[in-house]
Amino acid sequence: MVMDGNKNGGFSPNIGWIVHRDVANEAHTVHWAKFLDKSIVRLCKEYGGIGFTFLIYPIGGLRRFFWKPKNNGDAPPPIHLPDQQMSTELWTKYIACSLSDWIDPDSPEPWLAQLSNDHFCQEVEYARYLGVQKMLIGLKHFSSRRLAELIKQHLHFLVLLPTKASDLGTVEMDVWTIWRDFRTLCGNSARLSVGLSLTADLDSEFDLHNDLALRRWYAEPLSSISLDYSLFICGTDNPLPTLPKAHRELINYLMVNRRQNIVLSSSTVQFDDISRLEQAVHSAKQLILSNGNICKNDGPMAGFFDLLQPLSDNLDSTVYQTFEQDVTKYVHYQRAIKAALRDLTQQAHEDTELVVFVLGAGRGPLVQAAINARQELESEKKHNEQSFLTWKMKLVAVEKNRNAILSLKYCNEERWSNSVQIVQSDMRSLSSLVDSDVLNRPDLIISELLGSFGDNELSPECLDGVSPILKPSTICIPQSYTNFITPIQSLHLHQSIATLNRSKGDEQCISMGRSKNALCHASDCCYVVCMEQFCFLVDTVEPCFSFYHPNKEGNSNARHARVRFTLPPNCELMGFSGNFEVCLYKDINLSTHPMRYTKNMHSWFPALFPLRQLYYFPDAVTVLFDIQRKIDADGCWYEWNIEYEGSDGQLFRSEVQNADGESQYMKLRYEMAYSFAVADASEQLTAQRRDEEQMRRIYDKMSDCVLRLLLTQTETES
Amino acid sequence: MVMDGNKNGGFSPNIGWIVHRDVANEAHTVHWAKFLDKSIVRLCKEYGGIGFTFLIYPIGGLRRFFWKPKNNGDAPPPIHLPDQQMSTELWTKYIACSLSDWIDPDSPEPWLAQLSNDHFCQEVEYARYLGVQKMLIGLKHFSSRRLAELIKQHLHFLVLLPTKASDLGTVEMDVWTIWRDFRTLCGNSARLSVGLSLTADLDSEFDLHNDLALRRWYAEPLSSISLDYSLFICGTDNPLPTLPKAHRELINYLMVNRRQNIVLSSSTVQFDDISRLEQAVHSAKQLILSNGNICKNDGPMAGFFDLLQPLSDNLDSTVYQTFEQDVTKYVHYQRAIKAALRDLTQQAHEDTELVVFVLGAGRGPLVQAAINARQELESEKKHNEQSFLTWKMKLVAVEKNRNAILSLKYCNEERWSNSVQIVQSDMRSLSSLVDSDVLNRPDLIISELLGSFGDNELSPECLDGVSPILKPSTICIPQSYTNFITPIQSLHLHQSIATLNRSKGDEQCISMGRSKNALCHASDCCYVVCMEQFCFLVDTVEPCFSFYHPNKEGNSNARHARVRFTLPPNCELMGFSGNFEVCLYKDINLSTHPMRYTKNMHSWFPALFPLRQLYYFPDAVTVLFDIQRKIDADGCWYEWNIEYEGSDGQLFRSEVQNADGESQYMKLRYEMAYSFAVADASEQLTAQRRDEEQMRRIYDKMSDCVLRLLLTQTETES
Repeated sequence: MVMDGNKNGGFSPNIGWIVHRDVANEAHTVHWAKFLDKSIVRLCKEYGGIGFTFLIYPIGGLRRFFWKPKNNGDAPPPIHLPDQQMSTELWTKYIACSLSDWIDPDSPEPWLAQLSNDHFCQEVEYARYLGVQKMLIGLKHFSSRRLAELIKQHLHFLVLLPTKASDLGTVEMDVWTIWRDFRTLCGNSARLSVGLSLTADLDSEFDLHNDLALRRWYAEPLSSISLDYSLFICGTDNPLPTLPKAHRELINYLMVNRRQNIVLSSSTVQFDDISRLEQAVHSAKQLILSNGNICKNDGPMAGFFDLLQPLSDNLDSTVYQTFEQDVTKYVHYQRAIKAALRDLTQQAHEDTELVVFVLGAGRGPLVQAAINARQELESEKKHNEQSFLTWKMKLVAVEKNRNAILSLKYCNEERWSNSVQIVQSDMRSLSSLVDSDVLNRPDLIISELLGSFGDNELSPECLDGVSPILKPSTICIPQSYTNFITPIQSLHLHQSIATLNRSKGDEQCISMGRSKNALCHASDCCYVVCMEQFCFLVDTVEPCFSFYHPNKEGNSNARHARVRFTLPPNCELMGFSGNFEVCLYKDINLSTHPMRYTKNMHSWFPALFPLRQLYYFPDAVTVLFDIQRKIDADGCWYEWNIEYEGSDGQLFRSEVQNADGESQYMKLRYEMAYSFAVADASEQLTAQRRDEEQMRRIYDKMSDCVLRLLLTQTETES
Repeated sequence: MVMDGNKNGGFSPNIGWIVHRDVANEAHTVHWAKFLDKSIVRLCKEYGGIGFTFLIYPIGGLRRFFWKPKNNGDAPPPIHLPDQQMSTELWTKYIACSLSDWIDPDSPEPWLAQLSNDHFCQEVEYARYLGVQKMLIGLKHFSSRRLAELIKQHLHFLVLLPTKASDLGTVEMDVWTIWRDFRTLCGNSARLSVGLSLTADLDSEFDLHNDLALRRWYAEPLSSISLDYSLFICGTDNPLPTLPKAHRELINYLMVNRRQNIVLSSSTVQFDDISRLEQAVHSAKQLILSNGNICKNDGPMAGFFDLLQPLSDNLDSTVYQTFEQDVTKYVHYQRAIKAALRDLTQQAHEDTELVVFVLGAGRGPLVQAAINARQELESEKKHNEQSFLTWKMKLVAVEKNRNAILSLKYCNEERWSNSVQIVQSDMRSLSSLVDSDVLNRPDLIISELLGSFGDNELSPECLDGVSPILKPSTICIPQSYTNFITPIQSLHLHQSIATLNRSKGDEQCISMGRSKNALCHASDCCYVVCMEQFCFLVDTVEPCFSFYHPNKEGNSNARHARVRFTLPPNCELMGFSGNFEVCLYKDINLSTHPMRYTKNMHSWFPALFPLRQLYYFPDAVTVLFDIQRKIDADGCWYEWNIEYEGSDGQLFRSEVQNADGESQYMKLRYEMAYSFAVADASEQLTAQRRDEEQMRRIYDKMSDCVLRLLLTQTETES
């Protein structure tokens, strides 16, 4: 069986085959059924030859699968799928199992419900014994309370739903809602994934024009799409069996990562001619391979990053190196610096010396950008006016991290001809150096202190700290920035934070909250996340806080925003995704706004403000997101909650999250504290560094995601 | 630089080069020192070309390294090892760092101690900034209390000690004790490893004849051996530089795994002729490659397994499959069964039917062995007497696991011509089946219920449960078994259990103790461990508990043993390693006794009874190990402690571990309990299954270890 195509570097889609549907008729012969149950190796070889990469086989054997239960005390045939016919590694690798078809714990017949309950447990126990990792189970009713109870207690399940709600006995709910109700009954376990079994007629929620409804599946653990052979069309003009356009488009829309698979089956056609089935597999594979939506990256995601705290921690060389690799960002900075220098020198006299401060210079990328900018002006002048620039530039690099100072000194010697004045200092403590004439007042200050949510690395506080040494005319790059939020749906992100919550409780984990000893709620932190399995619930992104520099009036940096979003019906609010836009100088901007993302930039993942629970809204509703940026003497923190009007007309207000910065608090001062905690932290950093190596790979994915969102956006608009 | 030879499947030893020793003289020129500090890439290339796989370079640069501190307020030269000359991944991969030579926090001069303290922190902080994972530090005094305090708080260190205690200012302690004292001061942190810098004269503790002293290094995280070029001899008859015999033998003895490396340096010779250095590297590599002691496996070890509880859990197919792969074990069983059958049929009449029960048949390996045994007797008879066996064999396979019953039925159909009677039952409940004539009383009962410590999977209790259905003449295979213990030293195993202790406290972990809710001490459990980094403290292994079957007199299976060992001076007791010997029938035995290990058998790792703390004994001492096997209505557990006479003549008695089975309790009954706990446990099982895939690899290693121990043993004896 030529399975596991992924091994060969290249991507080969996973296509499975549901064995039992094909053999439904022969299976009634006891002998034939028992023979097949013992022929798994042969089946693997045969279907592997056709192009399948795994098989789905009834865990209890075929005779038991097709047994018709009667209320006469008869027991079903015993489980018959011998383990010793194949080694356990191969079971795990190539076989998924399905429950016996008659098992229905939610049957209205009490005797069948009871019988189903017992045999469900027995089959699941046997799957565990075999080492089979995944069980496929078809949902039979729009409400399956007893099944949910059973599933909660066991293994991993792939729950299959048709794309037609009426097949599950309802016309009042859509398929997504039926699934949501079911997984909620199952405690939203991360052990559950969902499959869609495409029907010939698709419900309107699966219509591509219905983007707001359809994109909810992006927020679910959709791992499989099941296709019956009868869906394929074999035209005379087209000898290859192909799927109808609507089905093809739906698959293209829904399959967005390489871990998802397609499962084929045939309940009607007998395959005397194996080549037709081969063609169907080929056709399904081509459909996946030609899908531009599929992310290149299929590894496990790096997950959640706590906010960087460059003020209270010293960054290390690896972090600097990673961020320096964002060429796009520095090209924009260079353009902004060039424009500012040009404006500053418009009326400059000969021998004017422009003083330029790079604040938080790190290992020097902005120093380099400033040098480049002046050189560009020089060569332009030379080219246009055949003369040289008459003004000089005095560059000062200010950095508090004493290790990075060593890097700056190296660059100064090796690359900058010792032309840069390097100052080891917190940028908020430069007054004495200016007062004692060690430094001149700057004409231009340049910094890159922004986090994923703009101000979250305390750029406003740092730049305000420089105000005392500025001239009235000093230009600040950046000039201003604004952050934005938008509501999202995502089961996966909610589950991930629940997992973090457990580990945050761990004593080994260092609290990010105000006090080292405070109990820290993972759901009350803002994260930097490369988001996957999520969808935006609205097509708008609303501005939140804005900051302008220089802040000559000394306005407070505390903020309070109340932002309203009208959510569509049948959605589940998980939290709010945050991003920002910065005006570096005049019309030169950088943006992580989903609709205006700066192309090829990869310095920032989105920020995420989670809610403590998932909020399901059956009807359209207006939700208000209330967020505050609070400040005290030592630091800064966000507090947030939501408000909406319930179906009863009552105003619902959720508890304020991260009240008083208990779970997450951004400190204003560097803490030099070598202790066990720091040693432990450095081990965590080592682990994080490994994550960061993943970052470049993720950046690719990120660009892909953004591109896809932009495309979706454009398609929706057009 | 041709580093990382391990990548190419084949094993290439790691050889490092200590840069600063070589350049000590030139380094005094400021210019040259600063030039070298910026030439790391070139150095990597040059030394890589010679055959080195990593470099050790002073973290603060050469000038700072060689600075001579004076008590006049002068500061040392600033750190000078620019990070941007090489990308951070390469720093991590190819560079280890050494602290500046003059740093000595334990200096008797208070000003130097203080200066050292401050600059130690600064250099370590810079190493962290660079992303360098390991710092080399040479011990300067036999007692280094302040250095230990500093090290405790930081990163990973390789602590280098000479093989001559007088170099550290003492003739009263041996080098191992100096190291033990130091790591104890450092809280026995797992972040520390040790290196031995071989001196021309080796202290007597490094003499190969002094095995009891030398083997203590097996129990330490010995990661490096450092050699100065001056140790190599270049004879006229031997053009290749080689090490003296004593040094070669010592390296062969100490280097036992592939993660260990050799570090070369030269403090005297200048290398005008690079080829001599090349030859020294070649010579060091050959020394490692020709070393038969080095274990094949160099991956991280699978670690600790909790005891299997086949009585209270159902094993799964993977576990059965793993154990079935031990051919040697089943060949011995087959021989034993054959001998028993021959004895039983000595006076058998024609048409006698011998009833053979396989108790706990699993998926049937012992059933197969019984069938094979009879077939062998048949063909012997045919060959010798030209006639057929006249007696029949009635095989009954008893198994309580309903899933394994399905496997047995498959084998019965496919391999055993339905000749075997399969009974799903606990072996302790067969009386009713015998009384009702469903089963005949057995002439022979066969079982394989032994764990790593013999009785720990409750074989005595299970077999006693069969007593009511036996005939007076029934033969039991096995007939008897005895377990053994021996004291061991191991920092690594102690550290590993300390780590387990943390995770055992975790609520997600299922308690193995008497009560589900009881607090479980990891140090109070007996483990099954593929041991590494340990040594036996004595050359004897003492018997502990013995059991005989059938137990017709119904003797109690409770046991109490008090075993004495006389430990050598300067050793550190970690716990006791356990193993067993079983007499299957007459002279056919299986053994995991270190000196009598059954060749090629791999079903059992050693058992380990840890102590709660490490016990260091400066003088020879007699330690008594007190161990009890206790039983109550529901299960069985071990309790243990030690006793010895302290240097003050007072008897010391340690607290009884696992009192009342609080931390580990082997249950007598199967618990069918589907709950969240079980679902979680099944996820743990999945993880464990991955470990089990490692098991086969470990078996190889295991055989290696045993072989090595046997070899060492033989060498010592001869």
